[in-house]
Amino acid sequence: MQKPTQIAGFTEITATATMASATHGGRAKCLQRLIRLGLPVPHTVALSFGAVKGLASGQGFDVAQLLAVFGDRSLLCVRPSSQDPDWGGPGAILNIGMNDRRHLELSQSHGEDAASMLYLRFLQSYAVHVARLDADAFDLTEADPTERLKQALIIYEEEADEPFPQDAEVQLLEVLRSMARAWEGTTARLLRQARGAPPDAGLGLVVQEMALGVGPGESGSGVIRFVDQVTGLRRVSGRYLRQSFLRDALEAGGGALYLLNDPRGPSLEAEQPEILERLNEMADICRARLREEMEIEFTLERGKLRVLDAVRVSRSPRAALKIAVGLAEEGIISREEAVMRVEPRALPELLHPQVDPKARRDVVVRGIAASPGGAIGKLVFSAHAAQSHAAQGEPCVLVRRETTPEDIRGMHVANGILTERGGMTSHAAVIARGLGLPCIVGASGIRLSTSKKTLRTLDGRVLKEGDLVTIDGSTGEVLAGEVEMLEPALDDSFQSLLDWADAARDIGIRANADTPADAQTARMFKAEGIGLCRTEHMFFEEGRMMVMREMIFADTEEDRRAALDQLLPMQREDFTQLFGIMVGQPVCIRLFDPPLHEFLPSDREGARALAEALSLPVSDVMHRVEAMAEFNPMLGLRGVRLGVTVPEIYDMQARAIFEATVAVGRKGAHVVPEIMLPLVSARREVELLKTRIDGVAAAVKNETGASFDYRLGVMVETPRAALRAGDIAGHATFLSFGTNDLTQMTYGLSRDDAGKFMGAYVQQQVFPEDPFHTLDQEGVGELLMLGAERARAARPGVTLSVCGEHGGDPDTIAFCRAAGFDYVSCSPFRVPVARLAAAHLAIRDELGEAASGLH
Amino acid sequence: MQKPTQIAGFTEITATATMASATHGGRAKCLQRLIRLGLPVPHTVALSFGAVKGLASGQGFDVAQLLAVFGDRSLLCVRPSSQDPDWGGPGAILNIGMNDRRHLELSQSHGEDAASMLYLRFLQSYAVHVARLDADAFDLTEADPTERLKQALIIYEEEADEPFPQDAEVQLLEVLRSMARAWEGTTARLLRQARGAPPDAGLGLVVQEMALGVGPGESGSGVIRFVDQVTGLRRVSGRYLRQSFLRDALEAGGGALYLLNDPRGPSLEAEQPEILERLNEMADICRARLREEMEIEFTLERGKLRVLDAVRVSRSPRAALKIAVGLAEEGIISREEAVMRVEPRALPELLHPQVDPKARRDVVVRGIAASPGGAIGKLVFSAHAAQSHAAQGEPCVLVRRETTPEDIRGMHVANGILTERGGMTSHAAVIARGLGLPCIVGASGIRLSTSKKTLRTLDGRVLKEGDLVTIDGSTGEVLAGEVEMLEPALDDSFQSLLDWADAARDIGIRANADTPADAQTARMFKAEGIGLCRTEHMFFEEGRMMVMREMIFADTEEDRRAALDQLLPMQREDFTQLFGIMVGQPVCIRLFDPPLHEFLPSDREGARALAEALSLPVSDVMHRVEAMAEFNPMLGLRGVRLGVTVPEIYDMQARAIFEATVAVGRKGAHVVPEIMLPLVSARREVELLKTRIDGVAAAVKNETGASFDYRLGVMVETPRAALRAGDIAGHATFLSFGTNDLTQMTYGLSRDDAGKFMGAYVQQQVFPEDPFHTLDQEGVGELLMLGAERARAARPGVTLSVCGEHGGDPDTIAFCRAAGFDYVSCSPFRVPVARLAAAHLAIRDELGEAASGLH
Repeated sequence: MQKPTQIAGFTEITATATMASATHGGRAKCLQRLIRLGLPVPHTVALSFGAVKGLASGQGFDVAQLLAVFGDRSLLCVRPSSQDPDWGGPGAILNIGMNDRRHLELSQSHGEDAASMLYLRFLQSYAVHVARLDADAFDLTEADPTERLKQALIIYEEEADEPFPQDAEVQLLEVLRSMARAWEGTTARLLRQARGAPPDAGLGLVVQEMALGVGPGESGSGVIRFVDQVTGLRRVSGRYLRQSFLRDALEAGGGALYLLNDPRGPSLEAEQPEILERLNEMADICRARLREEMEIEFTLERGKLRVLDAVRVSRSPRAALKIAVGLAEEGIISREEAVMRVEPRALPELLHPQVDPKARRDVVVRGIAASPGGAIGKLVFSAHAAQSHAAQGEPCVLVRRETTPEDIRGMHVANGILTERGGMTSHAAVIARGLGLPCIVGASGIRLSTSKKTLRTLDGRVLKEGDLVTIDGSTGEVLAGEVEMLEPALDDSFQSLLDWADAARDIGIRANADTPADAQTARMFKAEGIGLCRTEHMFFEEGRMMVMREMIFADTEEDRRAALDQLLPMQREDFTQLFGIMVGQPVCIRLFDPPLHEFLPSDREGARALAEALSLPVSDVMHRVEAMAEFNPMLGLRGVRLGVTVPEIYDMQARAIFEATVAVGRKGAHVVPEIMLPLVSARREVELLKTRIDGVAAAVKNETGASFDYRLGVMVETPRAALRAGDIAGHATFLSFGTNDLTQMTYGLSRDDAGKFMGAYVQQQVFPEDPFHTLDQEGVGELLMLGAERARAARPGVTLSVCGEHGGDPDTIAFCRAAGFDYVSCSPFRVPVARLAAAHLAIRDELGEAASGLH
Repeated sequence: MQKPTQIAGFTEITATATMASATHGGRAKCLQRLIRLGLPVPHTVALSFGAVKGLASGQGFDVAQLLAVFGDRSLLCVRPSSQDPDWGGPGAILNIGMNDRRHLELSQSHGEDAASMLYLRFLQSYAVHVARLDADAFDLTEADPTERLKQALIIYEEEADEPFPQDAEVQLLEVLRSMARAWEGTTARLLRQARGAPPDAGLGLVVQEMALGVGPGESGSGVIRFVDQVTGLRRVSGRYLRQSFLRDALEAGGGALYLLNDPRGPSLEAEQPEILERLNEMADICRARLREEMEIEFTLERGKLRVLDAVRVSRSPRAALKIAVGLAEEGIISREEAVMRVEPRALPELLHPQVDPKARRDVVVRGIAASPGGAIGKLVFSAHAAQSHAAQGEPCVLVRRETTPEDIRGMHVANGILTERGGMTSHAAVIARGLGLPCIVGASGIRLSTSKKTLRTLDGRVLKEGDLVTIDGSTGEVLAGEVEMLEPALDDSFQSLLDWADAARDIGIRANADTPADAQTARMFKAEGIGLCRTEHMFFEEGRMMVMREMIFADTEEDRRAALDQLLPMQREDFTQLFGIMVGQPVCIRLFDPPLHEFLPSDREGARALAEALSLPVSDVMHRVEAMAEFNPMLGLRGVRLGVTVPEIYDMQARAIFEATVAVGRKGAHVVPEIMLPLVSARREVELLKTRIDGVAAAVKNETGASFDYRLGVMVETPRAALRAGDIAGHATFLSFGTNDLTQMTYGLSRDDAGKFMGAYVQQQVFPEDPFHTLDQEGVGELLMLGAERARAARPGVTLSVCGEHGGDPDTIAFCRAAGFDYVSCSPFRVPVARLAAAHLAIRDELGEAASGLH
């Protein structure tokens, strides 16, 4: 090998050349690494980002000097080398240097057919991508390659008004310039920016001597991988095609060889066992030294193995996790690095069955992808129908205009949910994510008839109750019929990775869990306690609803207490179960929050049932139901306002919590329940309720002779509570920011109503993101910071957290961690994402920028 | 007169004694002033607050030394002297020193009857108020005073187990101690605190030599005033009663003399003309030197005139204004002082007819007093009925469960409004205050049947359509039948006072005015422009509603524009009228704000009419109406969100504003319209709309060839807009804080729904005040401060203001003034209050504490 050439603009790639992905691109750098590992890489030269930029803007380039590196008998190929391979780039152009003279020479050395194929391949690429001629004109049908070549040369001259260039210098310069310009085009720029490239991303190019996979002896090209791209399991895949270039084997219809012995046809292993052995060795070297699973592009030229390129195996999220854990377990990468190699946002699809990405999709309805995963079931149009299907063991998908708390039981047994209205944070979406059910909301194109039990789609198809559909909550699509599924991937690798994440993590992760089932999920995903247990759903259960209604209609405190006395043992049992499951971990219980009218019947039939139960005239019931309606229930009589004005409800709940605490305590489990007041806006609300709850605690201690502690805290959901957090912290040992409601109030925007215009708003960049999806750090975030600061000033040890939908969002976790919050709480199925995201933040901080650049 | 005595605890009142209301009470100080003016005040001694406090706690007091001031032949009376006369105090006790010996002496000098009456009066007071015996026991029926006295002495001895004390020292000491203790009692303390006294308010006592209004010659007592307590007009009133003490004349059934000649009976003027002349002179002296209209208590003792006391004439608000302006016009007090003497909060009742406070009240319904003033009319239960009554010239009172924008036309023609639901800031209340109509809301005790057109009251009375009622919006009472009224008092004195207020004021006052009628009221009350013109009501007018509905149902931008083109000339005319009325003054127009579904029919009948107009099936109309419903309309698709997503509406409004500007400009009136965007939460909303509105302005300039300016501003109603005010001010020349909505969002509290529990909340001091009534300075106020600070930092000359219900509240004006806001804007009928309140603040600042203590 001659002395490496390194002049302005290009660098011959050798083990010692000065070269980085930031200046010459990822492919050039990777090729250098392969050379260092002793792999048989053909002679290669790299053009820097600067040189390519110069070419695009028409600056001169000493192409003769570049050609001199290779010697004039070589054919060359040019491939793009962007900093991150994912950012794309122009396609490779092969066989540069082919002309009439070389055709003659190669016809003699490799045979006329091979020479013609080589020439033709170059001519076609050049005509279409460099000279920008019409591709159709070169779509030739002759069988004989030499005949095709002849015709192509004539067509080229006709179309281009000049003969095909014969000078290798001209050919190479035009190819390089054309690829440089293609990178600057608007389409290419938008495409790579969509993949995360910065606006000023540069392009490098690599010019490589061709290893000719055509001609005499064992000649051909292939691609080989050693892991499965979907599962991440060790398995050889790829193809080898004789008399072909680069990745042709992957596209070949027939004629390609299997790599391993295969009953379906001939294989490389059978025919060239030593080649396969050599490739295996190379893969081991790559994995160990490049610390990654690589896909190798190779060529055999008269039986000689050449490696043209090696790239990171593209992979599904589940494969990414498997590979990262595998590399760490082999000791090739550290556990922290394995953690960093898995994107938190990619985890959700590992937790649920997925619609197989390879399956045929017949989309009948599209909506907002509100809760990930796939499910198959029969369409049902009421919670009741869902329950009767479930009772018969039949999977079903519940369709509603929008869901209400009355639908809860139907939602619990459905396999998937579809609603016409609502957004990412509508009732249906929130509940579904909590249950880990696939859910699509805001499918505003459909026309629903609950009476006829039909659903008409935009294109006029009518689906009936009982029709089988597949719902894809990851894409927001409802598919006709039954589509193949992939099972969840909660295997040992998954557990290991999250354990490693926990080792690195430095902010707590709790789960929002309302039911024993939620709590079980929270435990399964190793949440560090319950950060938000909403208690209202408990009152919608069988046998409780009517008692609630009696309580609501009671005219005296005494009657209210009598009704609540019936609910007390049920609530106590609720909490005893939760404490039992979560034993040893904190459980934060939010007292009753919704407006009471949510529990009242909404139709005449329901009113009649209630009238019967209460021995009242229906008109009385209707009148009272109507009188309790609110203009803006979100801003009405609910939360702590009920606690202040109808204190018997909170009294009952506090008693249930304390009695449950005593009950599990007697079984040896120590619990310090956390009681949280919702919708606080003034210090005095907390003061009043603290006095009452202290009173209940004292009474329970007195009656039972047991002793226990509890913590009283406040859910900060109104801007005023954030502003007055200093005041409020005087009576509260913890503050948990309910960012859903806080966002609604800070923006003056109901999450249930925002769906109608949020799309347009985000599209027009009025809001950079949906603030119910991504925490608005400028507005809501400032209130969090102000609240945290003031609460800490008033009570230095105060526990601070975020609960609600944002809690599982990596950006929100970053915000809370930076603000020194103690924990975030999110829906159980977001817990793994949150654990991983929190670990990323801690590791990135620890390693500094070096770590964040690793991957 | 001997040398004045001034020892620890008491001070003889002389012209030169050292004495202040803060140490000896207002009565003592006033008596000193009367002495300085040369009025014939009997010998008087004042006990300081400290001395009285000592007496109450049982400390010794040298009563002998006090008695020595008077000489042992005097009878004495003791009266309270609190710092502010309004704080009350124990009743006067007369004729101290009466005993068997003095009875004998006085029987000789004044006659036995007179002597017995003197003794009896003292004995009864002493028995009940000092010895605390049962008052009933002394309720004697004998006609002869001496007989009554004898019996009373016996009863006293029986009840008290001791004879009536004969020693003047004992008598006086007991009286003083008893009065001192009465002041310390809980009832008295609560009573005076309710009147504004501080918890540590002290009591002084004055001991005065009795002028005996009984006995031979012209003897008697009287009270005289020279202004009318209700109207403030110059008019002598009061009574004189022969053979009586102190204020007995006022309570006398018969026998009292009129003061001036009167056909109804004998008068002092006729019988003692020189006395009346002397009293007239004294009144002139008092008014000139005490700078106040005084009520004089006088006694004639054998024809000799003595002045026992003089107090500020108690007065109605309208009298207070008249008197203050009168004193200023006479040059007795300054105009600033006159301004300070009228309470801003007292003004509203001068602006409206009032239910005569003396009239008999048969209260049938009670609710929240939401808009002051009284009205008489027939009950009607629909806006339509109100209109047909009005068409026949019949006054009516509109009763609704709650009002909606559809009721507007009915409200405009009604004389008063009553609603079952809502609070101080409900739709009905806000509109009624804007219209200056008496209004009662939240009359939750009533049971309304709009179908039967009846109203059942709590006590079971049923009122029907057409029944005559009187509505008192100042007290929140609905009275049966027709009750007498007082007319408004917008006379010259009123105008003068407010002109003087304007001269002192240093913050702008604008009016919220939506209609030409509002604008006329605003001009009448001298508002400095319109601070908030809501444009949505304009679309509810006859002939516009259906076009609005067509616009809402339009499927394409083109159809929407076609509908809006019909509205354009009407809107242009709206603005042309407003600019015409307000010419020369700024008019701030808020673009369309409410959710579109407010314009849709709410019942099947309305849907059918709409379906006919649009040639659509009713089911289609119903479905679309239903699809547009919102869970929380307050937080939904409205305000600038409509401007962004359905921009054609704002385009039309901007065009109407600019074309109106050009139209009035052509008539020679220069207008710089202010355009305000509602419900902003992000800078980009303003940016987008600014571009569009600039475009419309350019188009109108181009089409008309006229030139004009306009100002674009933002209504800050969401907490986020306040937090991001710096950003937003980049595109807005003014920010107007809409404190109604801002309060709703900061608290997470809908004003329409808060009524149900606000009473309980304020009662339990959860909120110190209803934040929709009094600006919450701690929470909402902080957002105002933050917003103002950030807006100013970004744009130093930015105009800042508050509009909405709080704008007319004196505390809010104080807050805005302190924060350096440019103006406040309030409903037209609050403008006088605001002008006066702002003047108070400026004058108080200028004079410092001295001024605030003047009054």
